[in-house]
Amino acid sequence: MSAVAVRAMFRSHPEKPPHSEVMSRCIDACFNCVETCTACADACLSERDVSDLVGCIRLNLDCAAVCSATGSIMSRSNKAGHRQLLEAQLANCVAFCRACADVCDAHGDRHRHCAVCAEACLACADACSAMLAAMRMPA
Amino acid sequence: MSAVAVRAMFRSHPEKPPHSEVMSRCIDACFNCVETCTACADACLSERDVSDLVGCIRLNLDCAAVCSATGSIMSRSNKAGHRQLLEAQLANCVAFCRACADVCDAHGDRHRHCAVCAEACLACADACSAMLAAMRMPA
Amino acid sequence: MSAVAVRAMFRSHPEKPPHSEVMSRCIDACFNCVETCTACADACLSERDVSDLVGCIRLNLDCAAVCSATGSIMSRSNKAGHRQLLEAQLANCVAFCRACADVCDAHGDRHRHCAVCAEACLACADACSAMLAAMRMPA
Amino acid sequence: MSAVAVRAMFRSHPEKPPHSEVMSRCIDACFNCVETCTACADACLSERDVSDLVGCIRLNLDCAAVCSATGSIMSRSNKAGHRQLLEAQLANCVAFCRACADVCDAHGDRHRHCAVCAEACLACADACSAMLAAMRMPA
Repeated sequence: MSAVAVRAMFRSHPEKPPHSEVMSRCIDACFNCVETCTACADACLSERDVSDLVGCIRLNLDCAAVCSATGSIMSRSNKAGHRQLLEAQLANCVAFCRACADVCDAHGDRHRHCAVCAEACLACADACSAMLAAMRMPA
Repeated sequence: MSAVAVRAMFRSHPEKPPHSEVMSRCIDACFNCVETCTACADACLSERDVSDLVGCIRLNLDCAAVCSATGSIMSRSNKAGHRQLLEAQLANCVAFCRACADVCDAHGDRHRHCAVCAEACLACADACSAMLAAMRMPA
Repeated sequence: MSAVAVRAMFRSHPEKPPHSEVMSRCIDACFNCVETCTACADACLSERDVSDLVGCIRLNLDCAAVCSATGSIMSRSNKAGHRQLLEAQLANCVAFCRACADVCDAHGDRHRHCAVCAEACLACADACSAMLAAMRMPA
Repeated sequence: MSAVAVRAMFRSHPEKPPHSEVMSRCIDACFNCVETCTACADACLSERDVSDLVGCIRLNLDCAAVCSATGSIMSRSNKAGHRQLLEAQLANCVAFCRACADVCDAHGDRHRHCAVCAEACLACADACSAMLAAMRMPA
């Protein structure tokens, strides 16, 4: 649903951003990852083996912070300049998402919320990579 | 899609939050509103009559800030205590969302992104109100 | 140092906000509280009795989220309208800060970081209360 | 004041982070930059030539988003692993801060708030660079 709304936003944006389709998916994947990482950190806090999950909780919170920044920055990306900044932010986001997915996946069989979170992280990494690829293509 | 992921998160949460369905919808509506308000602020900045839209831009950014806080707080809400804090946060979020919807709606005919944003704000206000109602019902 | 910078910002703001002194202190106290609550959550995660501190960690993260929203909203507060929204946000922030201070203070003797955090939360509650009082005075 | 509080937090952190002095300064500089960039965006919105300042407003908001993420991530940095992620985040933050300082500085003579903001951005870039250097030194 939210992907639909974001797409409608950028279709009616006065600057007609060139990659609005892939950009909308990227932004939506970022905020989806914020949601799942925030929820996963909280679910981990409720697990009995919480002391074993501290590293996962920290990375969940880190990943949520980076994805939130990326989502808002990409919403302002549809204009000239600062392409290098956007690319660095996207690459950074991919790295955090993959690291978080790895850590969550390592105990995804014991904690289903971690398996769900790993999926959302990988989906976000993919959407950010697709955005990076689109930006690097000749317009 | 993200609503599905969040719902799966809370279904696998060890504390089995009592209103996981309405809570997932609330959290997802909050982050959806963050996305649309952030994008709307940016679209407004690109409009020719930007100086007439300054109040809208500010309220968009305020609404995004409140919804982001509400979404993350509600993700940690599935446990004892602090019910009053949660209710105050939700009521506050409803107020910001409605105010932002009003301001956006006032020029939604000229700026389609503002009409889309107003819809997302009202949907978030509704989802937060539903969460408030669920919390006040006897469990 | 940061209070000085924020004060300089609002002194050079074209709209000359009426309560720039107390507003700067409020904004700075909010972000100071974000810093200490975020750091306190992390320090709690490193404690041996982490499973006893889960409620504290959650409230730390909640308080950081509310204070971050309040700080950014108050930075956009220097203009007409929406006084009720600002007052509700400030009152909400005071409530979260006091609740977090209470929870942190309850084990501040065992965990020094919680005592430091409680102080920052109370300072933020005071600065938000002072802002509320200033807004309610006749200009 | 807030630098003092953050330093006290990390001095009482159970893991005794190795570079707590430079880390505290980095975190504090990040949130100081969030404050000034957020305030600068708002001040720009109030300027008569707001349509000339749209690029500055966007970069202010981007820089605030990145610095907020960096500040919270560095608060969770005092532990094993993920050094590459931290370094990438810091390098990214330096890049956004420098870009924002450049843009603000370009019209700092006309808009004093932009001059103040440029200073805070450069101070944050310096503090993040110092943190990067400390992390790369043999412990």
